[in-house]
Amino acid sequence: MSKQLHLNAFLMGVGHHEAAWRHPRTRAHNLLSVEHFQNLGRIAERGRLDSVFFADELAISPRIEHNAQAIFEPITLLTAIATVTERIGLIATASTGYHSPYTLARSFASLEQISGGRAGWNIVTSAREAEAANFGLDGIPDHTGRYRRADEFVDVATALWDSWDDDAVVLDPETATFADPDRVHTIDHDGDLFRVRGPLNVPRSPQGRPVLVQAGSSETGKDFAARYAEAIFTAQRTVEEGVAFYRDVKARAVAYGRSADEIKILPGIVPYIGPTEAAAQELEQEFTDLITPEFSLRQLSEVLGVDLTEHALDAPLPPLPPIEQIHGNKSRHQLIKDLAAQESLTVRRLIAKLGGGRGHRTFAGTAEQVADNLQEWFEAGAADGFNVMPPYLPGGLEDFVTQVVPILQRRGLFRTEYTGETLRDHYGLVRPAGRFSSTAVTTRDFRTSTGGQRRWMCASR
Amino acid sequence: MSKQLHLNAFLMGVGHHEAAWRHPRTRAHNLLSVEHFQNLGRIAERGRLDSVFFADELAISPRIEHNAQAIFEPITLLTAIATVTERIGLIATASTGYHSPYTLARSFASLEQISGGRAGWNIVTSAREAEAANFGLDGIPDHTGRYRRADEFVDVATALWDSWDDDAVVLDPETATFADPDRVHTIDHDGDLFRVRGPLNVPRSPQGRPVLVQAGSSETGKDFAARYAEAIFTAQRTVEEGVAFYRDVKARAVAYGRSADEIKILPGIVPYIGPTEAAAQELEQEFTDLITPEFSLRQLSEVLGVDLTEHALDAPLPPLPPIEQIHGNKSRHQLIKDLAAQESLTVRRLIAKLGGGRGHRTFAGTAEQVADNLQEWFEAGAADGFNVMPPYLPGGLEDFVTQVVPILQRRGLFRTEYTGETLRDHYGLVRPAGRFSSTAVTTRDFRTSTGGQRRWMCASR
Repeated sequence: MSKQLHLNAFLMGVGHHEAAWRHPRTRAHNLLSVEHFQNLGRIAERGRLDSVFFADELAISPRIEHNAQAIFEPITLLTAIATVTERIGLIATASTGYHSPYTLARSFASLEQISGGRAGWNIVTSAREAEAANFGLDGIPDHTGRYRRADEFVDVATALWDSWDDDAVVLDPETATFADPDRVHTIDHDGDLFRVRGPLNVPRSPQGRPVLVQAGSSETGKDFAARYAEAIFTAQRTVEEGVAFYRDVKARAVAYGRSADEIKILPGIVPYIGPTEAAAQELEQEFTDLITPEFSLRQLSEVLGVDLTEHALDAPLPPLPPIEQIHGNKSRHQLIKDLAAQESLTVRRLIAKLGGGRGHRTFAGTAEQVADNLQEWFEAGAADGFNVMPPYLPGGLEDFVTQVVPILQRRGLFRTEYTGETLRDHYGLVRPAGRFSSTAVTTRDFRTSTGGQRRWMCASR
Repeated sequence: MSKQLHLNAFLMGVGHHEAAWRHPRTRAHNLLSVEHFQNLGRIAERGRLDSVFFADELAISPRIEHNAQAIFEPITLLTAIATVTERIGLIATASTGYHSPYTLARSFASLEQISGGRAGWNIVTSAREAEAANFGLDGIPDHTGRYRRADEFVDVATALWDSWDDDAVVLDPETATFADPDRVHTIDHDGDLFRVRGPLNVPRSPQGRPVLVQAGSSETGKDFAARYAEAIFTAQRTVEEGVAFYRDVKARAVAYGRSADEIKILPGIVPYIGPTEAAAQELEQEFTDLITPEFSLRQLSEVLGVDLTEHALDAPLPPLPPIEQIHGNKSRHQLIKDLAAQESLTVRRLIAKLGGGRGHRTFAGTAEQVADNLQEWFEAGAADGFNVMPPYLPGGLEDFVTQVVPILQRRGLFRTEYTGETLRDHYGLVRPAGRFSSTAVTTRDFRTSTGGQRRWMCASR
């Protein structure tokens, strides 16, 4: 079989378009409904997608009067989705800035156990002032400091996930042995920011560790991803830029002694799918027409760090501060600046472009055209797969799964059935050996050693 | 209808008896199975119980070689139970010592939303050295310091839960209004230990706030409970002691300006149920016979802070340090000391007594005798209900629900159907008004204002 692409469904409320909750194709109340999100998990699984994913922040959305607010915490929400699905991967965003490694590693380990090895962690460092203020800080730590904390945090978390050897749980009623204490290790981490003795109070999980995901595209972010990430969500606007990013990150990973295959690169795409190209474009226009420019100007002002609220909508962007002066999300800032400059966009057209996917690429066309476009990027070496960001939900995901996925399957580019059970299986990632263990255990060995059942969790049923 | 009692099922692994996982009535692998716990939630709901509850610690169990270890984090586990049940309350233990108020308040708010208003929080301060070492501390903070942190933590968490008025979410697509910003409040907490701006990034929940539960029985613990708790889990050995505790805590609550009804007192009971009293006692003896004395001695040494591992099993306890010198769980220490002294127990018999419920009262008898005993305590004014701690699971819970509950129902002491939908409804607790809101909203008003649906979450279905 030829090389296969990977598909993640990036789920956000009732869609990625900022006005999605106001379009007749959605129901605004679904924002508050766990059943809506469980349904999205089922649709993604029906399409044999690799995973679903939720972004997250630790403060309310800015401009709460217009901006639909995510109300669920991702790990609990994905737990609710785990219980109504069997295979789909479950990726939660969580911040290294405002958690403790022990409690966060444990929550992910619990999701791993509940889902039978389907958890992923999208590692973010949290760059909003509003988040810092909820955790006793007067401002956000600088970019370098945030990544230094993320480095140590990930090291501690992976040590905790490794702190029980795969065969540590003995569970022998005859000898009254629950666990072999020689196979449960303290981690004795004593670093610059954290001191953690361990072990974790959860045995090693089906995947060994959750899949590590990252989305930083700054130099520091790419370097961090090259060292730790097993999947990268990224915003790339052209296939050329995509190829350059892909090569850059893979080369960095190789320089860190990893194989290029150990890191899957998934650029975002916001697909508007219609029976004809014109119908798809009309659909996109319907969403654009729902944008409230005054609200979007305030959003854009916040992201760029420049007050645009008095700026004329039909003029180009004013000069922006250099990237060095940005302490928040550097790569998003750069992307918007480049987009406006390269396409000579007025502020009004920039707002329309950003409304769909906050800087991610939008594409309007027939299902065939969407599939062609994905295949083009994949075969050009710009992507190992895609971060699919439906502009409205559930319809946009349903259309992708029922119309685009079958085309990719017919072309031999995408699985027609799951061939594995864990998120690592789906992405073709190896199960890491525990760092304290003397023997490597593959997912298959692991399942066999724990009873040969489909899911380790259910070995006793 | 006469006054009704309340029943909480305290769930622990495959049972409260320390050797439960080795008894033929359990399957040890259920310790690792989320389906086992979902099944327990369903059984409790079938019995119309008020709630299920999980204890928690932030370190591995001591003596991991013998001691069956809880592997799930309670909030994620209760989320998994929430998705397969409709009414049963879901109470998770979480520590004020090692969380941030913002992230913990948010996780509970998410469980509230996912469960449609069934969440409760058992507030603990974490008294084990092993936990402190997982969070960078050289030892546990002293008793007073732990409760001071708990005080401020609860204040911040409740402010965050109140930070959205009940009617803050407008969700009007026509006017592009998601929320009314005048009804979403910063909390601007600036205290000794925490600085938190808020608001929380979850709207006010169906119950307003999760039900607050506490189990501390030290003087500081009782005072804390009297101020904040809406339900108390407590270990009381005799009906006289139960009455004294009940009156003490209710009086303290009244002294803090609360009504005695606002705080429900639930002593623990570990019931062994058999077709005859002799059969029930034999069953209890089977569990006692599975105790490993050398393991239990090490456990007891740790709890009491005295090395008993060389102590003769058939001698009484040696002199113990005075309670003032105990920095960990003071009330558990006192309870064990009293138990040994009042009943002149040898260490062997003390271990047998403690094996079933770690100091909680055990009771072996027919279903009728168990019901009689509960009725006696209830009518004597020692309890508003009970914290039922099945020695083995699922069988011990199943027997309680199918044999004891129907007797209590026939006597008019326990509901035959749920009359409400939230955990507050079950316990007869009022829905608290938001502290920043000018108008109090009852649960009923709240549901009506959000569409009159059974569950607010599903208003759009």
